[in-house]
Amino acid sequence: MNRINELTQKWKSEGLLLPIWSENNKLYVIDQRALPRETVVEEITDVRELAKAIKDMSIRGSGAIGISGVYGMMLAAMNSNGNKEAVIEAGKELKATRPTALNLMKTVDRMTDFVLSCPDDIFYEKFMDKACDILEDQLMFEKKLGEFGASLIDDGDTILTHCHSGALAGSGFGGRALSVIRTAFMKKKNIHVYTCETRPYLQGARITAYELGKFGIPHTLITDGMSGYLMKLGKIQKVVVGSDRVAANGDLINKVGTYMHAMAAKENGVPFYTATSSHTIDFTLKSGADIEVEFRPGNEVTHLNGQLITPENTQALYPAFDVTPNEMISGIITEMGVILKPYETELLKLKY
Amino acid sequence: MNRINELTQKWKSEGLLLPIWSENNKLYVIDQRALPRETVVEEITDVRELAKAIKDMSIRGSGAIGISGVYGMMLAAMNSNGNKEAVIEAGKELKATRPTALNLMKTVDRMTDFVLSCPDDIFYEKFMDKACDILEDQLMFEKKLGEFGASLIDDGDTILTHCHSGALAGSGFGGRALSVIRTAFMKKKNIHVYTCETRPYLQGARITAYELGKFGIPHTLITDGMSGYLMKLGKIQKVVVGSDRVAANGDLINKVGTYMHAMAAKENGVPFYTATSSHTIDFTLKSGADIEVEFRPGNEVTHLNGQLITPENTQALYPAFDVTPNEMISGIITEMGVILKPYETELLKLKY
Repeated sequence: MNRINELTQKWKSEGLLLPIWSENNKLYVIDQRALPRETVVEEITDVRELAKAIKDMSIRGSGAIGISGVYGMMLAAMNSNGNKEAVIEAGKELKATRPTALNLMKTVDRMTDFVLSCPDDIFYEKFMDKACDILEDQLMFEKKLGEFGASLIDDGDTILTHCHSGALAGSGFGGRALSVIRTAFMKKKNIHVYTCETRPYLQGARITAYELGKFGIPHTLITDGMSGYLMKLGKIQKVVVGSDRVAANGDLINKVGTYMHAMAAKENGVPFYTATSSHTIDFTLKSGADIEVEFRPGNEVTHLNGQLITPENTQALYPAFDVTPNEMISGIITEMGVILKPYETELLKLKY
Repeated sequence: MNRINELTQKWKSEGLLLPIWSENNKLYVIDQRALPRETVVEEITDVRELAKAIKDMSIRGSGAIGISGVYGMMLAAMNSNGNKEAVIEAGKELKATRPTALNLMKTVDRMTDFVLSCPDDIFYEKFMDKACDILEDQLMFEKKLGEFGASLIDDGDTILTHCHSGALAGSGFGGRALSVIRTAFMKKKNIHVYTCETRPYLQGARITAYELGKFGIPHTLITDGMSGYLMKLGKIQKVVVGSDRVAANGDLINKVGTYMHAMAAKENGVPFYTATSSHTIDFTLKSGADIEVEFRPGNEVTHLNGQLITPENTQALYPAFDVTPNEMISGIITEMGVILKPYETELLKLKY
């Protein structure tokens, strides 16, 4: 049995919730669009199908998309019997699916460098080994991040989270925010989670609620507008969210709505943390003001599960992300430790 | 033609959007639950049907419920040929539909006092006249409130509103928040409105968007979590919301989510106004901390238009309202003028 098949078996037996895996020279992905209604597994036999699964949002979340780059290049190697050209082409095709996905870009670039530098005669074996190393590293990073973050969680805490920053968005343990929460829970801390539904795409109501249920973590769904009042009532002790990107000064770019929870946390003296990988810190962005936030089609707001919820021809806006100023962030949880202010200098230490 | 029929004709010809009206000894209400999908008009022939329409949320909004008390007592007078007992009973039955609706309570009490003090022989005619006076007053209050509020709106403003505080929640001109917006628009100010969808019941996506469309006011739908980022981008110049209740110190009790917009407005230096009737100021509440906010059933959050949006058996919380601290409120717009800080003393002047 080869190493990647063994890893898949091991991870499944550990109770991981894998967004993508390899078995017998094929890939399998969970179609996250169908959750929580049903668990649909897609079989992937070539890189084009994988690229489509990323574009169609079957796979989503920066960690999961990052490891999809690894799996896709492995698949190309398997399908081509170790043809370097095919593997490099696969990397390019996958990168093109999400030009702004920092993790995917960095992972594919790292793999591509390896391909170019590896001697031809031992390429296939070494490449597959390298890929497995990266997948194992990614999973270990999630667990480390979870350990560091869990130290911030107290027994009895109710934790607010927004959007989905969990196992299916990462390597299967708990992604970012949910690695913190899951680790605290595994350490027998008595916790409760408020998951914000996260309109318009409802990642919180659909996927975060699904994962919390799978992991047996007590949780309650709320709408995005309720966090402030619940904080004022003293019902929330911590906020832990993921991150789409962190700027060099610690400004957080994350799913729209995050900034509102951060303002509520500041106003009510509730600590606000973001969980992120050190790879998600974008040193090319001096601050959050430098990012050009994607505005998605308005019909994603006017429709819900394909149903129009507003009068016909109503226009809508959908900034996909927002920017939370660094001063509102109590700590940035990474696989290398919890980074505290001043972020400008402290984050820089993760760069090298 | 009697006076109430004449008023109905006049109001319809003026382009009002009446939530309830009287024609030929019957009442008609717009079923707000069916909006914006379709405009369903219910015919109401007795007080029991009207009480059911209020309980079932066909009629909603404190102004509309208040005038429903007047219409219901008129209907009882018409049906009973001016029997005082029947009219007083009708008032009691209507008050019982919404024990916390301050406007309804005050209106019915005022009408009941009139019934008790009115000589029997001229009762029917005088009572119907009094009811018409109150209905005309209510409409005038909306227009006055709109005038005072519109003075705060500048040419070129984009105005954020939350939930539905419009014509169908009031007497048909524009209720509270939308009276301000509509008056500014009628004065040819170049304005744009962002209407927050207002989860979970989607009043903003359904009803506010519907009214803005009817009145021809340019508008854009956003989700509740987007206001903060749009303010930071400089895209919002004013916030105008309605009010469920205002405490004696100016704390605002309004649809959940309001407080988050207020924090965002404070953080970004955007003026935040509430539009209210002087009758909605509850001097029995020293501050917002004194109110016990209603928690509604969690399945109103887990379902949308009858569809489950979350895994089965997911628990949810639904505080129907939240409390916005007086310090975050730039002014309280009433039919008697715009009240500024310090609210504790300034609001008191409206009491007598």
